[in-house]
Amino acid sequence: MTRLFNFSAGPATLPESVLLQAQAEMLDWNGVGASIVEISHRSADFIAVAAQAEADLRSLIGIPDDYAVLFLSGGATTQQALLALNFAAPGQAVDYVVTGHWGKTAIKQVSPYVHVHIAANGEPGGFHDIPARDSWTLTPDAAYVHITANETIHGVEFRDAPVVGDVPLFADFSSSIASEPVDVSKYGVIYAGAQKNLGPVGVAVVIIRRDLLERSGQPRADIFDYRSHAARDSMLNTPPTWNWYLAGLVFKWMLAEGGVDEFARRNATKSRLVYEAIDSSGGFYRNDVVPQARSRMNIPYFLPDETLTARFVAESKAAGLLALKGHKAVGGLRASLYNALPVQAAQALVDFMRDFQQRNG
Amino acid sequence: MTRLFNFSAGPATLPESVLLQAQAEMLDWNGVGASIVEISHRSADFIAVAAQAEADLRSLIGIPDDYAVLFLSGGATTQQALLALNFAAPGQAVDYVVTGHWGKTAIKQVSPYVHVHIAANGEPGGFHDIPARDSWTLTPDAAYVHITANETIHGVEFRDAPVVGDVPLFADFSSSIASEPVDVSKYGVIYAGAQKNLGPVGVAVVIIRRDLLERSGQPRADIFDYRSHAARDSMLNTPPTWNWYLAGLVFKWMLAEGGVDEFARRNATKSRLVYEAIDSSGGFYRNDVVPQARSRMNIPYFLPDETLTARFVAESKAAGLLALKGHKAVGGLRASLYNALPVQAAQALVDFMRDFQQRNG
Repeated sequence: MTRLFNFSAGPATLPESVLLQAQAEMLDWNGVGASIVEISHRSADFIAVAAQAEADLRSLIGIPDDYAVLFLSGGATTQQALLALNFAAPGQAVDYVVTGHWGKTAIKQVSPYVHVHIAANGEPGGFHDIPARDSWTLTPDAAYVHITANETIHGVEFRDAPVVGDVPLFADFSSSIASEPVDVSKYGVIYAGAQKNLGPVGVAVVIIRRDLLERSGQPRADIFDYRSHAARDSMLNTPPTWNWYLAGLVFKWMLAEGGVDEFARRNATKSRLVYEAIDSSGGFYRNDVVPQARSRMNIPYFLPDETLTARFVAESKAAGLLALKGHKAVGGLRASLYNALPVQAAQALVDFMRDFQQRNG
Repeated sequence: MTRLFNFSAGPATLPESVLLQAQAEMLDWNGVGASIVEISHRSADFIAVAAQAEADLRSLIGIPDDYAVLFLSGGATTQQALLALNFAAPGQAVDYVVTGHWGKTAIKQVSPYVHVHIAANGEPGGFHDIPARDSWTLTPDAAYVHITANETIHGVEFRDAPVVGDVPLFADFSSSIASEPVDVSKYGVIYAGAQKNLGPVGVAVVIIRRDLLERSGQPRADIFDYRSHAARDSMLNTPPTWNWYLAGLVFKWMLAEGGVDEFARRNATKSRLVYEAIDSSGGFYRNDVVPQARSRMNIPYFLPDETLTARFVAESKAAGLLALKGHKAVGGLRASLYNALPVQAAQALVDFMRDFQQRNG
């Protein structure tokens, strides 16, 4: 058994201690005579696991009591559609700030339901920066303002919650949740697929300021109604129990390691190492994002040509550095540095980058 | 490590050999240096796993080429809503045949979108039988006719696909898929949560006759569009990879054990054992479903009073027979006998039932 350094953008690397625990418990969880994936979600055993996971996530991120926390299946994309169904009237204006690929995807999901107004768009600038706040054209009676806290493909990250007045701010935090302290009270909704910083793919976390649940939204199936999920503690239907359990193990690991403050330090260290290697390469490696908008989680970067890129991908994999190929939408390379990726992995990557440059530069 | 006989209605027992393989591969799958839950769904490695799972399911159930097979998150309840969004025009008539709790749930999901006509309803008879086919009032221009192939709470199962003419038949097969041979060509859509006969909770299978995908349906988010999922091989967004992988291991196990024919034999044996124990108990145990509609998968049954029921639940658990408490909607006891439950488990249950009756009858 060999564990390599895994820079996958998601599904992404998980803490080894969590996988070891899941492995040990795979056939008999907690002495009940069955795996946790084989027991009822309505059993006292599983309900305790679910409640503990919520309590630990609340503690980890600092979620105020006036926010509901849901654990749902369907990933972040499904939540993007549900935002409009739950919180906007049919055809109501909603404001979207687009800073990369996922902001565009978010718009695609809600277009059938609402009037999408693009309040700011980084695409004309190649998604290399976040449009200045004073250039945003917000709609006064919008149902919400939507941002993507971190863009995994374009490597653009908000450093702080933008001030948007009385309209609630909704944020896709799929790739940066729990990676540094966040003031939840500045947001109406925070949502995230778990598969980057929180745990395995197959479960999403949705954090909702409770007063928003009083909005009537639009006609929708009960299974698309956040109120119904909140009223049933995310067990309106059979939830993805194993995925929820594994996320809970990751929360416990993060708390034991020192919580979000500690991961903020590690993530700053990792991303600084890689950006310094890029910026000190004399142009051999190139990242196009302006420094103040650079993501700490996902670093897309480029070599002078496709031949070198292919060689880098093959040689880095052979050296035990996995999944460094860039997303097909932009090409090049990408290093994802989520919570569970150790600092040693980033150090190993920059050592490899320097060696690769010496041999090919 | 002790594995007990697990009669859970779902999430349900899984084959021990599958759990052992998942356990062995938990930290390093197939020598790639990472768990399968940590690698990209767009990697060649995972795409091969996904394609093999589809091929094995097609082989197992006998799915014709003119049917698409989707692996989606969200469980069966989400699919219930998507049926109306994808296959019915706004407000169009749809026919539902209700033979238990889940038929009613299916109606709840689509009510905001379509005109639901209840073509037949077993509730006045206490859900003890399937209303005779010649009593059904079908709508000639309905978008589809919906049945629940097996009702897990009321223990009522269709023995054959009802003939409904030219209107496509849609069936919730969550609790009986792959438990006996089925003629897929008699259905327009078959859907199922995996967590009973196919694998772990967190992934659903949807089998769709391809011509139905040409229907325009109603305005919906891209993530709610079966056409989009079909066009992207169920990777429109990040799918629940670990759950899909584990389902694939279950398919391989079922094929190796002899396929659906063999499981039909085992399931007939198990259910016959339990029904005989009930029917030969002189009224001590009671199942109210008429013999021709009795489920092979879920057997709800009752003792003379609540005190005995509580004692049965406690003593059977102490004897290593898990999760025999009935669903709260009907009370009593329930034995679920899905594919991965061995015949020895059913034998152990009836042995316990006879012993319990001797001591308490």
